[in-house]
Amino acid sequence: MNKPWAAIHVGLIGLGTIGTGVARVLHENTEVISRRLGTRLVLKTIADLDITTDRGIDTTGIRLTTDVNELFTDERIDIVIELIGGYEPARTFVERALAAGKHVVTANKALLAKHGNELFAVAAENGVDLYYEASVGGGIPIIKVMREGLPANRIKSLSGILNGTCNYILTKMSQEGGAYADVLAEAQALGYAEADPTFDVEGIDTAHKLSILTALAFGRPIDYDGVYCEGISDIQPLDIAFARDFGYVIKLLAIARMVEDKIESRVHPTMIPADHMLAKIDGVFNAVYVDADRLGPSLYYGRGAGMDPTASAVVADIIDIGRNMQTEGSRRIPDLGWQPGAVSELPCRPIADITTNYYLRFTARDQPGVLSAIAGILGDNQISIASVIQEGRSDDGSTVPIVMQTHPARERNLKRALAEIDRLPAITAPTVIIRMENAL
Amino acid sequence: MNKPWAAIHVGLIGLGTIGTGVARVLHENTEVISRRLGTRLVLKTIADLDITTDRGIDTTGIRLTTDVNELFTDERIDIVIELIGGYEPARTFVERALAAGKHVVTANKALLAKHGNELFAVAAENGVDLYYEASVGGGIPIIKVMREGLPANRIKSLSGILNGTCNYILTKMSQEGGAYADVLAEAQALGYAEADPTFDVEGIDTAHKLSILTALAFGRPIDYDGVYCEGISDIQPLDIAFARDFGYVIKLLAIARMVEDKIESRVHPTMIPADHMLAKIDGVFNAVYVDADRLGPSLYYGRGAGMDPTASAVVADIIDIGRNMQTEGSRRIPDLGWQPGAVSELPCRPIADITTNYYLRFTARDQPGVLSAIAGILGDNQISIASVIQEGRSDDGSTVPIVMQTHPARERNLKRALAEIDRLPAITAPTVIIRMENAL
Repeated sequence: MNKPWAAIHVGLIGLGTIGTGVARVLHENTEVISRRLGTRLVLKTIADLDITTDRGIDTTGIRLTTDVNELFTDERIDIVIELIGGYEPARTFVERALAAGKHVVTANKALLAKHGNELFAVAAENGVDLYYEASVGGGIPIIKVMREGLPANRIKSLSGILNGTCNYILTKMSQEGGAYADVLAEAQALGYAEADPTFDVEGIDTAHKLSILTALAFGRPIDYDGVYCEGISDIQPLDIAFARDFGYVIKLLAIARMVEDKIESRVHPTMIPADHMLAKIDGVFNAVYVDADRLGPSLYYGRGAGMDPTASAVVADIIDIGRNMQTEGSRRIPDLGWQPGAVSELPCRPIADITTNYYLRFTARDQPGVLSAIAGILGDNQISIASVIQEGRSDDGSTVPIVMQTHPARERNLKRALAEIDRLPAITAPTVIIRMENAL
Repeated sequence: MNKPWAAIHVGLIGLGTIGTGVARVLHENTEVISRRLGTRLVLKTIADLDITTDRGIDTTGIRLTTDVNELFTDERIDIVIELIGGYEPARTFVERALAAGKHVVTANKALLAKHGNELFAVAAENGVDLYYEASVGGGIPIIKVMREGLPANRIKSLSGILNGTCNYILTKMSQEGGAYADVLAEAQALGYAEADPTFDVEGIDTAHKLSILTALAFGRPIDYDGVYCEGISDIQPLDIAFARDFGYVIKLLAIARMVEDKIESRVHPTMIPADHMLAKIDGVFNAVYVDADRLGPSLYYGRGAGMDPTASAVVADIIDIGRNMQTEGSRRIPDLGWQPGAVSELPCRPIADITTNYYLRFTARDQPGVLSAIAGILGDNQISIASVIQEGRSDDGSTVPIVMQTHPARERNLKRALAEIDRLPAITAPTVIIRMENAL
């Protein structure tokens, strides 16, 4: 039975957007949280280098400090929330909190992608919990679903739209036909993209998140280096239009699947059938589609970023840890959902070894024999063509696009064929390749 | 830290479709379950009145009995799974298991809708867990999401497609235009509908499930009698076609929301905008759409019935209870997610008091003055008309449909107006009413 706790004390590192959201929800939803948890959550201390700026929140009774050490040495603080992001000093702070016997809640996917395995080991050594619901899918409780909702299943594959910036840009380009650079600028003006959007648009943020989901799905350590990553900055309106003609939509997908005892974990622009659930996820929303052996397909959809949705996930973790504390059940669930001794050593499959369908757009001089030359080289490399579109003729006799869909092909073979094709005198620009997924 | 448990012993009541699925997943996914839980789950005993029929499962080492009492008296059994469905003897069996100090897992929404509050009280008295993930949304972990995923939020509303039979029928009628009776017969032939489909098509099954979700969302006791319920058996192809013209889709929705400190909890055919996520849920799939104050909208989608999806949820509960046992943390979470002393007494709003938009189809003699008479009566009852379609003229001067959308109106006023309208000599059939939800 539950032990009575008069209150659970929380210390917060980082009073940026998310930190402000957490402080707000703890203040504004106190009543509903207490009615669920049965114990008061007290935000005791907030540490931030800039602690004096007014964030428009009520800080009555909260100690504000620039000295993060206060959180580690305060014996009354039970849970430390890390919301500063990035690798350092976040890593040091999380380690110190865990070593001081504090439970930790973090939203930091970059930190977990790179240092999660070590940090989980430190948490285990110290008998405390390190929770991270907010690190993937913002407010969507996808970590809980993967760790606790589907444990009876063997996961066959998962595919996710995990970055709202990319999905906003691709949705806008699809619906309104703008060029990438223009839509990015618009997203920046609206606050949907950072001034330096590299982490988002190059797929790095998505890859960080996928490394965590892959570990949860297949019982492996987090392996960020094993994730193949390609961003959206080369996507052309022309390819989006051809995709539509074929009945497809282009999304930046995070894909993890087990194929013949190897793990594929990859992030890249992907053409998916327009009637797939993931094709219907528009704008800044995120979604994760999971195919499990018992449940079959399921989908989890919601806001993947932003102050309030992320705070929803952070506070859910605090409450979950609070329930563990009430029942003296810390370390109730292994960090990644699998017992430490039962983690698999299944290797990652290199991208060259994957097999999928491909969309290819060749830029060729409008002259006889080009299609035959391309088809010959593809055939020599075991690439079988499913359909070809050679639309219109150039007005000036210069170049035209030739668009193909392939049957399932090995990526190594495809890349070898394209290297040869792109050396043909009639090919005037590098060939555009977009992977197609027909069976997510 | 976790206590070592050599094994957790499970007893199963009911070896029907779901019971067979549970036995299968425990057998076939032993390895993955053990790697997650760290303890072996042993299916020790199965009780069923017909225990001899071969279900095609490996029962080596499992005690098979027709005497359910064996489960309650066997001290080695930790968890009892109730999968016989219906009110009795399920209720008696669950009570006896709880009283014997067994944790219980059930998929029985009818039982919980009618007797859940009492059974939860028995579980609390005995210090054991009564889990029920499979009772709503089949394999979708919606109970876990509501209890543990969104606890930082005030829930504003939820709306769900919770019955695969109804959604299959409505999807078929929408996509292929068949009549209700024909599509129902087809669903029966395919095994998607029971020989007696009343519980499904009249919305009763959906209302059972909604009564549970409403309690989870708003911190109330389960109140099945407070759920308004209307089924799909009167839906006409004509109304589906008009809905499409207006940009709407008809779904059997379960809706719960808090409006001015009263709870609306209702099940009825509903027109929703075709671009809403719930409008895209086709066939036998289920989905729950939740609007929460911090997270905003989120959606949970998957298979809501069937042997394997339901078994996925049942076994997730067993594993969850197993983790509680390992950490001696039973009763870790209140049964409905809210502390017993913190349950709200917010009343339900009677259906006559709701305010929404309405679709109305009048069947009127094709003669002058009818529309004016209808509009006059609606106006007298404070019903404001948003649009009218009066298509074509009858060939034989007999009757024509007049279709209207109203602005938001109070249901009591609408019903009063329609009673008057349906008494007009020019109105030759009862007016069809379908509620429209534009802001789920």
